[in-house]
Amino acid sequence: MAARGGYGTTRILPLIDWKKAVRRRKLIVGFSDLTAVLSYLSTRLGFPCIHGPMAAADLALRFEPAALDAFARLAAGEVSPREPWGSPAERIRGGAAEGVLSGGCLSVLTSLLGTPYEPDFRGALLFLEDVGEPAYRIDRMLTQWVQSGRLSKIAGILVGTMAPARGESIDELRRLFHDAGKRLSVPVRYGFPAGHAGKNVALPFGVRARIDAKGRLFLLDSPVEKV
Amino acid sequence: MAARGGYGTTRILPLIDWKKAVRRRKLIVGFSDLTAVLSYLSTRLGFPCIHGPMAAADLALRFEPAALDAFARLAAGEVSPREPWGSPAERIRGGAAEGVLSGGCLSVLTSLLGTPYEPDFRGALLFLEDVGEPAYRIDRMLTQWVQSGRLSKIAGILVGTMAPARGESIDELRRLFHDAGKRLSVPVRYGFPAGHAGKNVALPFGVRARIDAKGRLFLLDSPVEKV
Repeated sequence: MAARGGYGTTRILPLIDWKKAVRRRKLIVGFSDLTAVLSYLSTRLGFPCIHGPMAAADLALRFEPAALDAFARLAAGEVSPREPWGSPAERIRGGAAEGVLSGGCLSVLTSLLGTPYEPDFRGALLFLEDVGEPAYRIDRMLTQWVQSGRLSKIAGILVGTMAPARGESIDELRRLFHDAGKRLSVPVRYGFPAGHAGKNVALPFGVRARIDAKGRLFLLDSPVEKV
Repeated sequence: MAARGGYGTTRILPLIDWKKAVRRRKLIVGFSDLTAVLSYLSTRLGFPCIHGPMAAADLALRFEPAALDAFARLAAGEVSPREPWGSPAERIRGGAAEGVLSGGCLSVLTSLLGTPYEPDFRGALLFLEDVGEPAYRIDRMLTQWVQSGRLSKIAGILVGTMAPARGESIDELRRLFHDAGKRLSVPVRYGFPAGHAGKNVALPFGVRARIDAKGRLFLLDSPVEKV
């Protein structure tokens, strides 16, 4: 479990012995800047990990008993594929979607484009969140991903509880993600309680998941079984 | 000449008829968000253009007679290859460098990585500038470019007069560009008076230029001759 996020993770990617990391068979846990590690593990190495609480951030500063309990159950392999996970996400575009859950902080993901650590989102149910980014940057990043062609085979987009930047509205964010979903012809859901804002309910990356027509997320596999 | 920068240029890239644009044989002029157009024109289409003043920004708001005069001379094809252009840039790393001048606003350039509009900087003398970006983002963008391998064949880096973000020092910026130059094994010069801060002396993109050991820039070709 990472202590905290911040910045600089992309700098250490070339220094990690990925084979060794995978051989240790441990669930790596974190979010935000750790997105660079999680997306590589889950999409390139096929190794599950958890987008979830960090020791010095979530455990020490914004302790959410329900979210921590959810994390503990997920990490213990106690979550049933018939149990809706988190809370239903608002419909922004389209219907149900099923794919391998991955993604993370949009600006960190975008900083991997064109590098050897670029995630492979083919078949992904793409979770996205960020913090403090003005709408024009969100739009520029989504445009970059769409233009890159690297999202042409995703199953859908699940956006976290993103807070709009100061002076901007949540409607603007909704509009941008709707537009991205339209350009990609995929369903988009908004407001899953994970990421920088809200409860940060843990999400397993690298395992199959499904969003139904009501916006409920079901975790079809356990990250623990796959480790 | 663009009226102003802002954002959204990457969205219009697929809508431009590039063949037609080049056939018109006009010098396109602008900077900041226009970087997306300039870098594609100058590095992918081999068509020169000018990183320079914009009508509603430089001409209306920060009128600099000397810079405007320099622009007019450049656009008229009156600049000699023996005349030092702008003012000498501070040495950050290494010696002289010669290549095809291109580049622009770092964050806009970075938003092209992985897309069909990604510039081709092989053989480039890379001009970089930006505004308001905190050091950690500058570092993340430079890291992305270095890791992408797309700068492995540049001749050198010429940084504009970048103002550090609030609460940060210019030394930190110098350190980041020095580090990038070291990773790429190229000379780096800092403080050429072009970009968002300072005088914004026009630079021709897509033509050969040389920085000598004293940091003086010489424009070896005229953009007008090549149009």
